[in-house]
Formats: sequence, C-alpha cells, structure tokens
Amino acid sequence: MKRKTTRIGIVGPGRAIDRGVAERVSALAGDRAELVFHPQCFLREGHFAGPDAARAAAFADYANDPSLDAVWFARGGYGACRILDLAFGNLGAAARAKTYLGYSDAGSLLARLARDRVGRVAHGPMPADILREGGEAAVRRSLGFLTGTDDGAGIDAAAQAPGRYAAFNISVFASLIGTGWLPDLSGHVLMLEDVGEYHYRLDRMMFTITSNPEVKKVAGIRLGRCGAIPVNDIDFGRNEEEIVRDWCARGAIAYLGRADIGHDVDNKIVVFGERGAGA
Amino acid sequence: MKRKTTRIGIVGPGRAIDRGVAERVSALAGDRAELVFHPQCFLREGHFAGPDAARAAAFADYANDPSLDAVWFARGGYGACRILDLAFGNLGAAARAKTYLGYSDAGSLLARLARDRVGRVAHGPMPADILREGGEAAVRRSLGFLTGTDDGAGIDAAAQAPGRYAAFNISVFASLIGTGWLPDLSGHVLMLEDVGEYHYRLDRMMFTITSNPEVKKVAGIRLGRCGAIPVNDIDFGRNEEEIVRDWCARGAIAYLGRADIGHDVDNKIVVFGERGAGA
Repeated sequence: MKRKTTRIGIVGPGRAIDRGVAERVSALAGDRAELVFHPQCFLREGHFAGPDAARAAAFADYANDPSLDAVWFARGGYGACRILDLAFGNLGAAARAKTYLGYSDAGSLLARLARDRVGRVAHGPMPADILREGGEAAVRRSLGFLTGTDDGAGIDAAAQAPGRYAAFNISVFASLIGTGWLPDLSGHVLMLEDVGEYHYRLDRMMFTITSNPEVKKVAGIRLGRCGAIPVNDIDFGRNEEEIVRDWCARGAIAYLGRADIGHDVDNKIVVFGERGAGA
Repeated sequence: MKRKTTRIGIVGPGRAIDRGVAERVSALAGDRAELVFHPQCFLREGHFAGPDAARAAAFADYANDPSLDAVWFARGGYGACRILDLAFGNLGAAARAKTYLGYSDAGSLLARLARDRVGRVAHGPMPADILREGGEAAVRRSLGFLTGTDDGAGIDAAAQAPGRYAAFNISVFASLIGTGWLPDLSGHVLMLEDVGEYHYRLDRMMFTITSNPEVKKVAGIRLGRCGAIPVNDIDFGRNEEEIVRDWCARGAIAYLGRADIGHDVDNKIVVFGERGAGA
C-alpha cells in the first residue's frame, strides 16, 4: 500500500523568501513530502513578505485547508506579531488537525496557536535555514518531523521526557509579555534562545521575563544558544548563561541547564505542551 | 534674607560618570544649588557604576537624606531595572518629600517611584547630558527646574495644561510592561521617546505597549523624538510617527501628536502625575 504523502503548506508571516529557497527545500523533500509554497511567501512590501492583510490571509487559508497536514513558517525576520489580531478569527476544524512549525519571529504565532489550543505547535527549523552553511541538516530535521519519518530523532533531548514544554526566541518572548497573547505556561519547561542581542539587552529582557507573574509559574527555564552577540563598547561582565541563571534566581524560577536550540543548523525541535510517557 | 540653597544629591543607577562631568555641572549650578555627587556615581564594575547593591544603597541613602531636596540621576545606560527590588524597601518620610529627576534607563526608577507615590517624579535632562554638544542648555533646564528658579519654563509645553502625565523611553517602558513595576497610567498623557533603535524594533515595542491592557487606559500617547535610528538592510517603509499612529489606532488609543522630549539637548521636562489648573 502506498504511503500517503505529507502535504506541507508554507506561509511567510515575517520577511520574504526567494524562489531559490523554495526550490532547494522542495528538492530536499523529494517524494517524502509535497511542499506547497503560498505565493505570499515571495511578496515584498517594505520590510515584509507582503502587507499584513496578505500575510494574515495566507496563514488562515493554509491553516483552514483540509488537504494540508502542516503549516510551516518560511522565515522569521519580524512581522508575525502584526497579524496576531487578524489571522485567528476564522480558524476551523482543519486548522485544529494540523502541525505548525517555525521559530524566531514566528514564535508570536506559535504562542497564540498554543494559547488557543489550535493544532500541534512546534519550535524548529524553517525553510530559510537552507541558506545557512550546512543548512540542509536543519531543513531535513524539520522535514523528518513533519512527515513523521524520523521517529522523533529531531526532538531536543531535553524535551523528550514526559512533561510540558515551550520554546521561544528571547526577544520575541519578551515582546509578548503583558500582551495577552502568550499561552498558559504553568508547569512548562520554558526553553529560550536568541541571536544578535547585546548582553545588556539579554539582561534587560530576562528582567522582563522573570518579573512577569505568569512566567513565574513555569517549571523552569532552559537556555539554548545565544548566537552572534555584538561586542559592546564596555564588556558586560557576565555571559548569557550567567545572566539567565542570575535572573532565574532573582525570580525564584528553577534554572534547568542548557537546551539544544538556537539560530543555527543544530537547532532541535521542541513540541509545545504536554508530552506523555508514551510519546 | 538669604535664599535657601537647593541641595541636590546625584546617584548613578546605570553607568558611571567621570569626575569631569561632576565638575562641569557643579560649575554651571554656581551658587543656585549645592550638588552632592555620591561617590557611587564614579564606581565601575563591568557595565555598571558599581555593583547592584552599591547602586541601590546610594539611591536609598540619598532618597532618605532629609538635607537633600532632590535626587538627580547621573546618567542612563542600563542598570536601573536591576535595583528595582533592592532600593525601595526602606524609603521613609524624607524620600516622600523629594523631587526625582532623570530619563532613559532611569525611567525604571521613575516608574516605581510613581507607582509607590514617592515624591515628585520628573522626566528630564541628567548631568551626563553636559557631554552633548550644547549640553549646558539641557543641564541648565534641569537645574532651573530642581531649584524652582525657572518658573516652569523647562516643562514640555504639551505637559503644561491641567491633566495627568508620564514620560518614558520606549525601550525602557516596553521592558517594564507585565513586570508589575509600572504606575497606574489611567487617564495619563503618555509621552514616549527613544534613541538608537531600528524602525522594526520600534514597531515591535509599540506592539507590546499598545497591546497591554493597562496601557490601553491612558488618555493618549504623544511621541517625542526617536534619535539616531540605525539604517536597516531593508527599509521598514514607515517612519516612527507612522509606526506610533498605526499601533495607537490598532490599540484604540488616542494619538495626541508630538512631545518635545528625546535623547538630545532640547529634551524638555515632564512632571509625572496630576497637574492642576494652578500649577
């Protein structure tokens, strides 16, 4: 009996991708999956992959398409928070039966999907990661996860035990604090990563995050990689793990160690919500 | 009868200043005011003007000193949020009878002072502004305000009518959202300024700010200057006023126009809280 091919729809809530990305990622997928890139992914309007309305409509269209098994976010780069109040009005049964995968800026959508308990939500590599050196490994990891052909090998080891999990970019997560768009994170292991932020900014964002009463309900925080930290005119005096340890201690939140996530090709997958003993 | 000389204590909740700043600002004050620079202002530990405990203790010491009429924050530069939970435990009657003045990173302390209704809280130039070209005018404005010799001439024209006011740096204000340290801003004109942030970051911070239920209670938002906006690899497509107008509209918050505040020598003074008809 022929195995059903997984159909994956790709939309771009943030910045645009080029056709070349779509071609390379489709070639990697081969006949394991049929990738359907929404034309919106290639639109360009100022900073964004098309106007807010077009990005919201593309997301809602694909989320509601019963012929698609998953919605994969094409790329980060800022923009997803601008469609949080536009894209979720009409999600139906098909949207609830889907997997959603992305990270970085797309974390805004992961947050609201998890908040509204829509579908299976996961933090992991996106099509645009193909542009990184060695990026095929990252994209293959996501394809393996989305097609269910990897036996869970792409899941972060720290997110494989029974428990509850969520993963976010620190900047994106901090920007969602106090907005009402975050899911209930009670008892969750919260995994955080970042890229391109000064140490003092990481420190300030960890102040915001660990001061928030909702975040204080987490089971603990794990730190992924913070890549490409710019050199400040004066050394901050603490590295990123010391910063996170410090704010966890001040906020009476358990620091649980490192996570294998980040803006890089080793970025592993974290599935949001409850993971049972049999998962 | 000899007029009482105003005694102003200066502390550094963020980064250090040099002795030269203290000398130049003291010379400008002349015999209008006696400036008392806490030795902590000149400490250096990594990024900060001394350890958190030293910065918190200096603030509390001067706030509680009955011989001082005002506490003036020496400089911004990140650090004030780190002493929010250390510095406020033992503020007494002398602390409540004082004026507090600063802006930028010091906004974290202005927020908590206003939240706890401690003293008269104002957003305006700091001693380190003397280092800007033409900075004497900014420092004179603050000296005139603190000594009460300017007849209110240094107050932002948009904050002179009867009403309630608050002013913040956008980055600092966004970092306080959801932390519990912000004052009740119901019915306030909220004035915001920034420096050195990309348009996309201003957009994301205005998303956070205008999505917050507490901020939605303001009477409206006025935009000060956003200086030194870095050039992004792709133009954002909206300037800072368009960004603020857009998010105010999305958040059903009145956009009230511009304010005369910013990280520059024209930065006017905004007194927090209620301003009566006779002020």
